[in-house]
Amino acid sequence: MTNAEGLRGQIAGQTALCTVDKTGSGLSYRGYDIEALAAHAEFEEVAFLLLKGSLPNGGELAAFKTRLRANRGLPAALRTVLEQIPASAHPMDVLRTGCSMLGNLETERAFSEQQQAAERLLALLPSMLCYWYRHAHDGERIDTALDDDSLGGHFLHMLRGRTPSTLDVQVMHCSLVLYAEHEFNASTFAARVCASTLTDLHSAVTAAIGTLRGPLHGGANEAAMAMLAQWSSPDEAEAALLEMLARKEKVMGFGHAVYTRKDPRNAIIRSWAKKLGEAVGDRVLYPVSERVEQVMWREKKLFANADFYHASAYHFMGIPTGLFTPLFVLSRVTGWSAHIMEQRAHNRIIRPGADYVGPARRAWVPIDKR
Amino acid sequence: MTNAEGLRGQIAGQTALCTVDKTGSGLSYRGYDIEALAAHAEFEEVAFLLLKGSLPNGGELAAFKTRLRANRGLPAALRTVLEQIPASAHPMDVLRTGCSMLGNLETERAFSEQQQAAERLLALLPSMLCYWYRHAHDGERIDTALDDDSLGGHFLHMLRGRTPSTLDVQVMHCSLVLYAEHEFNASTFAARVCASTLTDLHSAVTAAIGTLRGPLHGGANEAAMAMLAQWSSPDEAEAALLEMLARKEKVMGFGHAVYTRKDPRNAIIRSWAKKLGEAVGDRVLYPVSERVEQVMWREKKLFANADFYHASAYHFMGIPTGLFTPLFVLSRVTGWSAHIMEQRAHNRIIRPGADYVGPARRAWVPIDKR
Repeated sequence: MTNAEGLRGQIAGQTALCTVDKTGSGLSYRGYDIEALAAHAEFEEVAFLLLKGSLPNGGELAAFKTRLRANRGLPAALRTVLEQIPASAHPMDVLRTGCSMLGNLETERAFSEQQQAAERLLALLPSMLCYWYRHAHDGERIDTALDDDSLGGHFLHMLRGRTPSTLDVQVMHCSLVLYAEHEFNASTFAARVCASTLTDLHSAVTAAIGTLRGPLHGGANEAAMAMLAQWSSPDEAEAALLEMLARKEKVMGFGHAVYTRKDPRNAIIRSWAKKLGEAVGDRVLYPVSERVEQVMWREKKLFANADFYHASAYHFMGIPTGLFTPLFVLSRVTGWSAHIMEQRAHNRIIRPGADYVGPARRAWVPIDKR
Repeated sequence: MTNAEGLRGQIAGQTALCTVDKTGSGLSYRGYDIEALAAHAEFEEVAFLLLKGSLPNGGELAAFKTRLRANRGLPAALRTVLEQIPASAHPMDVLRTGCSMLGNLETERAFSEQQQAAERLLALLPSMLCYWYRHAHDGERIDTALDDDSLGGHFLHMLRGRTPSTLDVQVMHCSLVLYAEHEFNASTFAARVCASTLTDLHSAVTAAIGTLRGPLHGGANEAAMAMLAQWSSPDEAEAALLEMLARKEKVMGFGHAVYTRKDPRNAIIRSWAKKLGEAVGDRVLYPVSERVEQVMWREKKLFANADFYHASAYHFMGIPTGLFTPLFVLSRVTGWSAHIMEQRAHNRIIRPGADYVGPARRAWVPIDKR
């Protein structure tokens, strides 16, 4: 494997959207620290910041939310497509297909339509996901054109069939803010490579969804949940974890490709997981999670990343584990869309070279001589 | 724009599949010159070469073609999805959606299934395209499980509703061979970025289709056809072309991002376009194409690339212009699949860095102060 593999440490372009790890632990969106955004901003404010370039004032935010609400209804042809997808499907395959199908029905015909296309997709992805989920699992054809104030509330409302609590909506805002953007991660970079041929927004977001689907990228919160769900007490968790470490098994939800000292998103989502655990009367999952975090630091000096406490937070809100990575999509589509627009504004087709390591030139051999 | 933009000239990884332009004009697949492959090989031999690593012997080729024939039938759910897509849709959006939908119905559950998944997709993409096209345009639900010997023949049979001539099948073999593989072009690189998260084959091919869709990548043969169709004689073409050049308009089908002296595929497809023109009694399109090629070289020292004579060749076979880029997909899916397998065999997640050019750190401003 050469240094070129993975393009690690190579600069692939410019961005004004995000800094990661300038100090070993930092993250900012368009200059705003993630801690401030997570503490103060609704997700819709951050979505606006990423898509339009600045935080909205009161009137802009209200108008933005009104447009998103108006965009929650699924076209009939898209509902029919979602109804063809079995319950056994990977939910990321559902979103990838729904996004691609939307590109047939509401094609982005010029870049002047990109803001409109991005808003439609942001509003409609939760509808696609919940419509398919409820149809495939419960046999229900739900109405997705609900009037919830926020995207996170709309998602929980459709999934669970009731208006969510204030606490749940707060956690969704924070979670969606934390997952919205992360520089040239693999899915975002895939979206930019795709966009660099000047293709449409739906193609580039479809590419990103399929990329995030991979277990090296989006699946960490699901894997963390599967691990944590095995253990019924902190002591049991510690014993089992030490055995895993002795066997050199990978523990999901720890460490990061870019952060070196800590993941700034971890402390934020941890505090919400704790509050949710208290609200639902949990005495197992949160204490087990805390112990795992302590042991990983004590034994390996590995820090929990953004995904680790998302597992318990989502679980406490009653979200099925298979929807954790799709939830990541519902947020990150803002970052992807902003990167696609940025790529278009300063485009050069992304076409690297390759180091040839195959056979030397060889002569054709007719089939009867092979 | 920095040097990093477009990763031009940067090595992004290793490949044993293809060399492009080692001498300014050369192309080889796994060590075999494109000239030899185009002259002697059926497309299915080249597909086998790319997917399995070596040219097949007689028994291997027969077994491969039998498997491909057996894989031409569309699942009912996929037919229903294709029937939801209107005739006005971009045919590349149809293939992107069909490929993504197949990933829901026949999910690649482990990399041990990759050869099987790639063969299924190779056999089924023509069925998806023609089923949609004939349904959307003619209102017919065609049977795609036909027993044509070759992929190119199967495509023409479904599209036109009759068994194609020997000449047409020969041209399809050659055309599909020429388009099968081209190193780290943008769509292939998008497939590799996607695959580097260890996602499934359908996600990575879906990403590649959406990337090829862009006008900077796959649309050149369609654009060349649109241009050539305007002119009814070589003299009219020359006069109009000189005016275009004087206005500094871009002429599609000329020059190349990597080749510097010539595109080795051009002479090959040109000779087939000539034969097809004679067979159909053409006295306009081929002579117009030749004149355009001469004028572009005389005036600009620009050579015709692989796409230029594909326009007339496809047109002579009665293929609608909107299906030219999708035909590229039906062939290139072999190169994409081979690159996905190669990426998996020596994987590191592709995650480059970015040069931050956005706002400096700034303090949060409450919404009523904005």
